[in-house]
Amino acid sequence: MSRPLAAALAVMLLAGCAAPLRGTGDLGVVVERADGRVMVVESTTSSVLASVPGLGDLSHAALVYSRDERFAFVFGRDGGLTKVDVLTGSVAARVVQSGNSIGGAMSQDGSLVAVANYTPGGIKVFDTASLSLVADIPAMGADGKPSKVIGIADLPGRKFIYTLYDAGEIWIADLADPAKPGLRKFTNIGKLPYDALITGDGRWYLAGLFGEDGIALLDLWNPDKGVRRILDHYGKGKEALPVFKMPHLRGWAAAGTEIWLPAIGHHQVLVVDKGNWTEKARVEVAGQPVFVMARPDGRQVWVNFAVPDYNLIQVIDVPTKRVVKTIEPGKAILHMEFTPKGERVWLSARDSDKVVVYDTETLEPVAELPAVKPSGIFFTARAHKTGL
Amino acid sequence: MSRPLAAALAVMLLAGCAAPLRGTGDLGVVVERADGRVMVVESTTSSVLASVPGLGDLSHAALVYSRDERFAFVFGRDGGLTKVDVLTGSVAARVVQSGNSIGGAMSQDGSLVAVANYTPGGIKVFDTASLSLVADIPAMGADGKPSKVIGIADLPGRKFIYTLYDAGEIWIADLADPAKPGLRKFTNIGKLPYDALITGDGRWYLAGLFGEDGIALLDLWNPDKGVRRILDHYGKGKEALPVFKMPHLRGWAAAGTEIWLPAIGHHQVLVVDKGNWTEKARVEVAGQPVFVMARPDGRQVWVNFAVPDYNLIQVIDVPTKRVVKTIEPGKAILHMEFTPKGERVWLSARDSDKVVVYDTETLEPVAELPAVKPSGIFFTARAHKTGL
Repeated sequence: MSRPLAAALAVMLLAGCAAPLRGTGDLGVVVERADGRVMVVESTTSSVLASVPGLGDLSHAALVYSRDERFAFVFGRDGGLTKVDVLTGSVAARVVQSGNSIGGAMSQDGSLVAVANYTPGGIKVFDTASLSLVADIPAMGADGKPSKVIGIADLPGRKFIYTLYDAGEIWIADLADPAKPGLRKFTNIGKLPYDALITGDGRWYLAGLFGEDGIALLDLWNPDKGVRRILDHYGKGKEALPVFKMPHLRGWAAAGTEIWLPAIGHHQVLVVDKGNWTEKARVEVAGQPVFVMARPDGRQVWVNFAVPDYNLIQVIDVPTKRVVKTIEPGKAILHMEFTPKGERVWLSARDSDKVVVYDTETLEPVAELPAVKPSGIFFTARAHKTGL
Repeated sequence: MSRPLAAALAVMLLAGCAAPLRGTGDLGVVVERADGRVMVVESTTSSVLASVPGLGDLSHAALVYSRDERFAFVFGRDGGLTKVDVLTGSVAARVVQSGNSIGGAMSQDGSLVAVANYTPGGIKVFDTASLSLVADIPAMGADGKPSKVIGIADLPGRKFIYTLYDAGEIWIADLADPAKPGLRKFTNIGKLPYDALITGDGRWYLAGLFGEDGIALLDLWNPDKGVRRILDHYGKGKEALPVFKMPHLRGWAAAGTEIWLPAIGHHQVLVVDKGNWTEKARVEVAGQPVFVMARPDGRQVWVNFAVPDYNLIQVIDVPTKRVVKTIEPGKAILHMEFTPKGERVWLSARDSDKVVVYDTETLEPVAELPAVKPSGIFFTARAHKTGL
């Protein structure tokens, strides 16, 4: 290498310029689950910018973003926590922090990332700058046994809320002083909470129960009122249908004053009135719903399905509550993600090895990107939202 | 300059690396109105990154962001439209496109920026990449006269909605084909609409009327139903109070199912039920409200005031609708902006030549930044939101 060129590269590296300068508001990450790799993508012209390997087992991976939208914190099935720099397309840091993790959350101020673990259970909290461990909080239920943790989300003021699957409890960890985390526990919320969601305003936390019929609800503006049960006997158990894939509550949909949820086992989507928390309507769909997601303006809800209907997507018109289109974008549609203002939606077709982009007005495909066994798609706009 | 260094800089510039690589999700712009200059700031550690001069008359400036959160499009009182690169802290492009502009909007897909003009009225639409003019749409009212345009916002699918101040009309311009813009007009909406807002879901467009008592409402999911009047005789004219500063509707607040609005002339904030569009409550405040803005979680509403009460800020607790704190952050508080997840709020104190940052939980100041006659504060997270 010539001396001037070497000097140029040295200066570029010193200036943090290993990649071209660009904004990060239109970036995203697509998980290539089989290869332990993620693609960095941009949604303005629908292209792939980089491929980042070395993330371990991503067979059920999720991620959250730093508040500057530069770093993705990827939670792997092998307990790996990998900090990916989406600007340089490289791994900035990686720790294997447990045996199996299911998801995580970014603190409101962006300083802490919390990981919810299956094995050995509990949560671990890391400094987002260094990935150094700042708190390790086991999840021993009232029954004295360690519990898997699911449904973790951030709350205002360095707090995290999460649910103990085995123990049937909801906990809030306060990391104002990370050396002495405060814990508030809500016990006996119901059997086998399988996933949870928090509404975008951070007020309502809902834990879906697999062990019984209903949903546990906590009003975080009035936590002293405790957990109450809603949608009791909403149908999950009535006919004891086999469940081919657990639905994801985190793919919840808030459209106006309604919350749209997948009905476990049934070929239905539930519409719940957010005012009184009762069932308002059911929409018949083509299979067992997995993700039920609202377009950002709340006018459409998009649904994907469990085996054997997982090649289909259905689009529901929210005002009329009718399925307006059934789409077959490819094989094994595992996830979807809307662009921040909702003009497009990206769908991962795992068994077609591609990501398909649809225009949400015409409901027609407008772009395709090759991807190896793609699963989760996550745009950086999530950085600005509670619970995502 | 040595040859290696010159080569290094040349390579850096070629690589687009005139500034350090960084994410843009935590960036923002503060208008320094008297000097035609903006400061680029970041909200993670509350610091100033750059100062960008040469933007003309910024005495009532507003701006919108590109969808990648890299460029701010600043609308000046001299009709200037300036594209500011917040990464390099420089002017990327500038055109003087009218005699006086009041604001603008970014199309849903990020390809077009529309400017609303006072002089000579109408809107002009520019390509966001090149700032070349793609459409010039005069605003001739049904009365055959040119009209000032106010309250412009983006709608799904390259559409913009705006209000004709003099003519009392609402127009929707469809730029699907920029060479042949489509126009839909709603006439006779009421006298002297002074500002307008669109709800975050893009469904409801409200134009406040200065010439009569009430607000014109358009349901954009059902535009054929036309414009209806709400909050008729809500008090503006009852006592014919002098109005020291027109309130800004764009600083509206949606908290749950309520919309909080400044009552013109009165020392009150109106709470409107979004379900039936009737007045639900009024909150007495310390002066004539200008901006009434909800913390992103909708649990607090912050209010600033017109002369002579413009050194005050009041914080209202949404559930109880009570003023919980009156703050004096500095002299002449012109604007406020919440960080995306709401942990902090930035306030511009024009006559104290500073920006003050408050913690929204403790309601205490946590940082200060010197700024010359600061007015508007705009964080890049607006890029992801309809109407901002």
